[in-house]
Amino acid sequence: MGTKYVYTFGAGKAEGNAKMKDLLGGKGANLAEMSGLGIPVPAGFTITTEVCTHYYDHDHKYPEALKSEVEDGIRHIEKVMAASFGDPKNPLLLSVRSGARASMPGMMDTVLNLGLTKQTLEGLVAKTGNERFVYDSYRRFIQMYSDVVMGANDEHFEQIIDEVKHRRGVKLDTELTAADLRELCDRFKEVVRRDCGRDFPEDANEQLWGGIGAVFKSWMTPRAIEYRRLHNIPGHWGTAVNLQAMVFGNMGSDCATGVAFTRDPGTGERRFFGEYLINAQGEDVVAGIRTPQPINIAAKKSSEEVSLEEAMPPIYKQLVEIYQKLEKHYHDMQDIEFTIQQSKLWMLQTRNGKRTGPAAVRIAVEMVGEGLIDKKEAIMRVEPEQIDQLLHPRIDPKIKREVIAKGLPASPGAAVGKVVFTADEAADWAAKGKKVILVRLETSPDDIKGMAVAQGILTARGGMTSHAAVVARGMGTCCVAGCGALAIDANKKQLRIGEIVIEEGDPITIDGSTGEVMLGELPTIEPELTGEFGTFMSWTDGVRKLKVRTNADTPHDAQVARNFGAEGIGLCRTEHMFFEGDRIDAVREMILASDVDGRKKALAKILPMQKGDFKGIFKAMAGYPVTVRLLDPPLHEFLPHTDEEVEDLAKKMGVPAQRLREKSSELHEFNPMLGHRGCRLGVTFPEIYAMQAQAIMEAACELTRDEKIKVIPEIEIPLVGHHHELQQLRAVCDKVAQEVISRIGTKVEYTIGTMIELPRAAITADEIAKFADFFSFGTNDLTQTTFGFSRDDAGKFLGEYVAKKILPIDPFVSIDRNGVGQLMKIGVEKGRTTNPKLEIGICGEHGGEPLSVYFCHEIGLNYVSCSPYRVPIARLAAARAVLMEGKGGAMSGTA
Amino acid sequence: MGTKYVYTFGAGKAEGNAKMKDLLGGKGANLAEMSGLGIPVPAGFTITTEVCTHYYDHDHKYPEALKSEVEDGIRHIEKVMAASFGDPKNPLLLSVRSGARASMPGMMDTVLNLGLTKQTLEGLVAKTGNERFVYDSYRRFIQMYSDVVMGANDEHFEQIIDEVKHRRGVKLDTELTAADLRELCDRFKEVVRRDCGRDFPEDANEQLWGGIGAVFKSWMTPRAIEYRRLHNIPGHWGTAVNLQAMVFGNMGSDCATGVAFTRDPGTGERRFFGEYLINAQGEDVVAGIRTPQPINIAAKKSSEEVSLEEAMPPIYKQLVEIYQKLEKHYHDMQDIEFTIQQSKLWMLQTRNGKRTGPAAVRIAVEMVGEGLIDKKEAIMRVEPEQIDQLLHPRIDPKIKREVIAKGLPASPGAAVGKVVFTADEAADWAAKGKKVILVRLETSPDDIKGMAVAQGILTARGGMTSHAAVVARGMGTCCVAGCGALAIDANKKQLRIGEIVIEEGDPITIDGSTGEVMLGELPTIEPELTGEFGTFMSWTDGVRKLKVRTNADTPHDAQVARNFGAEGIGLCRTEHMFFEGDRIDAVREMILASDVDGRKKALAKILPMQKGDFKGIFKAMAGYPVTVRLLDPPLHEFLPHTDEEVEDLAKKMGVPAQRLREKSSELHEFNPMLGHRGCRLGVTFPEIYAMQAQAIMEAACELTRDEKIKVIPEIEIPLVGHHHELQQLRAVCDKVAQEVISRIGTKVEYTIGTMIELPRAAITADEIAKFADFFSFGTNDLTQTTFGFSRDDAGKFLGEYVAKKILPIDPFVSIDRNGVGQLMKIGVEKGRTTNPKLEIGICGEHGGEPLSVYFCHEIGLNYVSCSPYRVPIARLAAARAVLMEGKGGAMSGTA
Repeated sequence: MGTKYVYTFGAGKAEGNAKMKDLLGGKGANLAEMSGLGIPVPAGFTITTEVCTHYYDHDHKYPEALKSEVEDGIRHIEKVMAASFGDPKNPLLLSVRSGARASMPGMMDTVLNLGLTKQTLEGLVAKTGNERFVYDSYRRFIQMYSDVVMGANDEHFEQIIDEVKHRRGVKLDTELTAADLRELCDRFKEVVRRDCGRDFPEDANEQLWGGIGAVFKSWMTPRAIEYRRLHNIPGHWGTAVNLQAMVFGNMGSDCATGVAFTRDPGTGERRFFGEYLINAQGEDVVAGIRTPQPINIAAKKSSEEVSLEEAMPPIYKQLVEIYQKLEKHYHDMQDIEFTIQQSKLWMLQTRNGKRTGPAAVRIAVEMVGEGLIDKKEAIMRVEPEQIDQLLHPRIDPKIKREVIAKGLPASPGAAVGKVVFTADEAADWAAKGKKVILVRLETSPDDIKGMAVAQGILTARGGMTSHAAVVARGMGTCCVAGCGALAIDANKKQLRIGEIVIEEGDPITIDGSTGEVMLGELPTIEPELTGEFGTFMSWTDGVRKLKVRTNADTPHDAQVARNFGAEGIGLCRTEHMFFEGDRIDAVREMILASDVDGRKKALAKILPMQKGDFKGIFKAMAGYPVTVRLLDPPLHEFLPHTDEEVEDLAKKMGVPAQRLREKSSELHEFNPMLGHRGCRLGVTFPEIYAMQAQAIMEAACELTRDEKIKVIPEIEIPLVGHHHELQQLRAVCDKVAQEVISRIGTKVEYTIGTMIELPRAAITADEIAKFADFFSFGTNDLTQTTFGFSRDDAGKFLGEYVAKKILPIDPFVSIDRNGVGQLMKIGVEKGRTTNPKLEIGICGEHGGEPLSVYFCHEIGLNYVSCSPYRVPIARLAAARAVLMEGKGGAMSGTA
Repeated sequence: MGTKYVYTFGAGKAEGNAKMKDLLGGKGANLAEMSGLGIPVPAGFTITTEVCTHYYDHDHKYPEALKSEVEDGIRHIEKVMAASFGDPKNPLLLSVRSGARASMPGMMDTVLNLGLTKQTLEGLVAKTGNERFVYDSYRRFIQMYSDVVMGANDEHFEQIIDEVKHRRGVKLDTELTAADLRELCDRFKEVVRRDCGRDFPEDANEQLWGGIGAVFKSWMTPRAIEYRRLHNIPGHWGTAVNLQAMVFGNMGSDCATGVAFTRDPGTGERRFFGEYLINAQGEDVVAGIRTPQPINIAAKKSSEEVSLEEAMPPIYKQLVEIYQKLEKHYHDMQDIEFTIQQSKLWMLQTRNGKRTGPAAVRIAVEMVGEGLIDKKEAIMRVEPEQIDQLLHPRIDPKIKREVIAKGLPASPGAAVGKVVFTADEAADWAAKGKKVILVRLETSPDDIKGMAVAQGILTARGGMTSHAAVVARGMGTCCVAGCGALAIDANKKQLRIGEIVIEEGDPITIDGSTGEVMLGELPTIEPELTGEFGTFMSWTDGVRKLKVRTNADTPHDAQVARNFGAEGIGLCRTEHMFFEGDRIDAVREMILASDVDGRKKALAKILPMQKGDFKGIFKAMAGYPVTVRLLDPPLHEFLPHTDEEVEDLAKKMGVPAQRLREKSSELHEFNPMLGHRGCRLGVTFPEIYAMQAQAIMEAACELTRDEKIKVIPEIEIPLVGHHHELQQLRAVCDKVAQEVISRIGTKVEYTIGTMIELPRAAITADEIAKFADFFSFGTNDLTQTTFGFSRDDAGKFLGEYVAKKILPIDPFVSIDRNGVGQLMKIGVEKGRTTNPKLEIGICGEHGGEPLSVYFCHEIGLNYVSCSPYRVPIARLAAARAVLMEGKGGAMSGTA
């Protein structure tokens, strides 16, 4: 026996099944699976992908045996459906659809209603008694077939339709009569004759082979080839062709069509949930012209509604049995499509249903309870990003939004408040108990105070990793960034969006999960960490190997993160502390000091304040490690920028404004990202790092001595590029630490390590690891330097890069595996060769992004660290990383 | 027989030789070598480094046999020198010096005049008849020995000397009488008794072992340990100890001392060249108190001078024989030191003499002619940086300079001209035939026109790779950059340096080889490419494997580079062309255009001008490849910066100034180095690259067709980080190129490649190489991103980094082998795995720096490319790289 080219399904049987995707394509395999389960699927057959390969290997010729196998397939359908293909009395109509191994939505061709001819037309009218339906089907068929198979210009058909509608004075296709549609069919055929130079085929068999050929040909259209290139789908896979009996929900009042979910996709509640319409086609349910009806009595909202349960009780009962069978079979909530043709139920499709985050968690947890899946499977059922919805307030989804502008969804959640334009105003208004949205062109560290008290932040400039976005995510504050439509006039205290003018104090609502901006105060829903969510998260902890820490600079953030399950702080930035309250004055005094003594004097003022900060954070993280990064930003960030601010500060400090301006100009840098910052400051001004090390160690030793609190301080030297930097600065910190320990008389174990955030650090990690107890990958900066992208500027072209498929995804969002990731891998491997005990984590924004967490697991990091509100996401991703081990496909997200 | 610990030399014999450095240290081995040649060296012996190792391995104890071996050594010296150590009548004095395998200048201890005691003192007075000499020697010995061996405080001795001088009313030590010196000796001994709690030793043998012990101990002083750590010298090497008979040139008029070179170190002329002084010590020759006399009659400048040839004819004759022997033996020009003690000649040292670049070349070429060395050895005799002196005008070395300020030696050579403060003034003055020095705070691309016509460029800001420095080197124009002492007031057209005020038009002279700035017009000497230089360079070409190209943007530069031996252009930047003449207007029109059509219209104006540029360059480089880099800098660099310039341009273009300002602000970037530049421009505005590709190919095809000139164009896409960038832009260029070829009907072979200047490009070179015919390492940018250093800003701390030994050398000057170099190595290896035919070069500033050229050879590049004036340097370095293969030491310059 030779190769089998055709696999039939229908009548509760199938020659294929779901596992045969390579041969039958995704669609064919799934239709076979359903049919094999005994579920009523319109009968059909699948021509295998091998035929496609043969077709292209043999100069567009089919294997010899194909013709007879297809004929046998047609006989099979005819038998099951009790109709005959091309039979003028009792015609069978077919659909022809492509179906490759991987989904290629919209890329290839489909033809419906195949088998309609002048002859069969009449038979169908007689059979259905519905002339309008038949002519409508026919004109659609001519249009689709001529376009797809014969290469006619579809515009010509649309012109004729418009002409007829105009003449008849109607607007909708549905208002056309059977006679109108018959006219369309005749005129369409003339177009075909003119456009294609031949008649529209009136022979069903000719139509059949035309349709099959068109699907195979569509595998090699330029757009399909381009799609495969972009998605790494090999051309030799080929496509299958599915031929299936047509069924119609619009033949009369004993017909219907509907869609349903086996559980509530919004909440996860275990109830059958769906809509249907009598005498309608699938697209009518979603088109919104007629109001769909609820599928069952339980879902009725008024007595006027008529559920399927009431309208067609036996069919409803059959549908319930089927959906339960499908859910049990697929072990997941199903999204199903069905059609009832003349009181017979046909299932057209079943697939795992999309659901909201809360629903995903509830369904997963309940299915474990029902014994449908195990805990590991439950973890795989919830996408990490989905639970983000559980962690922030959100706009009531029932409310209709009037979006006036759209920016980047920079920090999730929703915020409602009155517009203010400066950080000071934000602070003033907030002090008076008002909720504000801080609107800025872009934010700077000067704005921290205002950002901290605002409900939400809205900026006109900056990308997903702009200052506003990063700080807002860290604070868990909602933020919409880079909203280019905003025209801000801070002097007039006015904001324009197109024609709309918003004054200071006007209320707006922003959605940081979508980037949308709305006028007025929209109602919001607070996050609920339900019992199921807690249960679910505890399962992830049992599976994951990566520890999850948080990036937190305040006791409050540390506490939030602990509540979300953080196991320490992976990045505590100290520069934010430099801005708080009066200490910025001391910081500025230090910057303006002309010598070491002057700097030390100013630093002595900052020391007790930093120490106090560290105590608060250490307490909140008692028993867990806290990585404190020493000062990182260039000093000019701490100086005022506008003339007015300079004058103010000069007065306050009693120095000439000119002196301040000169200092600013002296500190000015062309590329501050690559300038005098990080450990370079420590090298130039070791006294700054000495003060910080002292504050950390005094806080740790005193808490240990006085409050018996377990403190695990980790001192982190940023931006190391050469091991000599770490070696020298480690010596500075060790010296101070030993002094503090012996002075206070309480021993606290501490470690010293570095960020790996420069390519050179990764490349020379073996040298650096000799002087480091830990590494923490600063992937924001590492991405900047590896790509040579400034995250403050790259927003201008990164969007285009993703759109033009140069990059699969913004590398500041998800780790670039092949570039940045390779450097990380080199860093891990080299670091551990010289220091096998090296503790390695990540503290860039990527630490809370699932694909990046998978990668971190894969290269063997010890922990990830992310903003408090992403800790649960990272915990889930870390667990999934374990479960996906060895299943490369899911993990190689960015190619 | 046990291990031998002592190796003697003297009387024309030696137990050791120059090859025994590991055992005898450098100094001991060389003294043995000279002595073995039969040259009169004061007799002595060397205690081996093994004794040092034993000493530290055995708790500061010597091997048992050492004592008797040292005693035998002393007997040997006594015999040769006909004097006895510790003998009151005929005392022998000794020097004790350290001598490790590697030179550690100034790190370890020395004691001279060992053996002087109360008893021997008298004998020496009797023997020499020179009481003052003897007491002076004695007080020096007490001072040195007490300090080094006994740990006395040297300040106490200096106080006493000052006191006696003050009392005697004299200023110089030499004015003290024998009686004064005797008083010093007595009082010094009191200090020793008080400081050290014991008497100064009066026993010669005690002194001997004290001196030996002190040298061994000095191996482990903290400063010696630190020196070894920094220079990677293992501690277990140990030091040898050299004991040698003292000889004195200051015992009377039959004594003398001198230094000489076997050839003229300034010109290389083959003549004996030196100075000497009768009755003097070595330091007197260089101290400048007495005027040294010429060594021979030929060198006399006046009849008043008395040469050694006249004063001591037999000794002169002996000296000539010795120097000729030494030069023949060492096959190199020698720098020798000698002392004549009571009419007996002693050679104290010989070493290869330092020499100027011109001398190095002449000596090397002549020595080949003399059969002393072969051509390969000649190549190794000239340091690449030395020939830089042959390639630029220089200030007449005979002129005394009054340096008023010092900056960085950014581009070599000397320049004399009148000060101007703007590029426009430079152009105006130059048009009137005046020579100008352009003085700027820093330069920008706007200044190119002025820079091109200036004799030299002087800036207050910026480092060795600032815009001014890079452009000036490219032009071969002298430049002093980052001269912090300059206070420029461009409005007043005035420059202040401390108290000195320089007005526009005042003449100054700058030396780009030293960074010095002088008032007035100093005379300069033009470079002479002598016949020897040409001969020498041709030898290098026979040896090297690396090709040497040039970075050139104009036909003139290309021609200069061809004259210097360049074999093509490795980097032709196109952006400089955008500034010339009126074309900047079209460029600005393009930037301001709001759509593709607008841009294309402006680009069409630029096209013929670019084409003209390329024709000129292709002609100058006929038969050689020319790599043309497509537009690289961010567009904002082409817009005016000051308000005035904006207003002017607005008027000229007929657009509102506000529009220009908005565009500037829209294009503003926080970190332009990491911004919208390089191929990112090509991705956003493919029409720009298309125009440039068209200009290149039209120029190439037309020259080929019309003038039968062989053109080898290489189109280079800059700043590629992801292979998709190159893939897409290559397609744009290929399309244009094919169009041009078929339109003009002349086929020109062209290639398309990319700069590798981002870490990601190096890491993913295998992917990129699939779309590249060539790679060119842009090591300026690669260094910036690998280190995270902005070259415009890093000047502020890089000096400190080198001073604090964090970095061995500025990585913008010499390739950082362990970081940037590793990325290059990865890039080369990965690139060639997917594209074995890949042509790889370097076009960063490093391409003309010898250590970097060695590295490029080592990792297998095909060529280096550098500024025209460094082409000969690169040719020489490339040849040396071949000759040094396998001799790692010389090549691992940067650790």
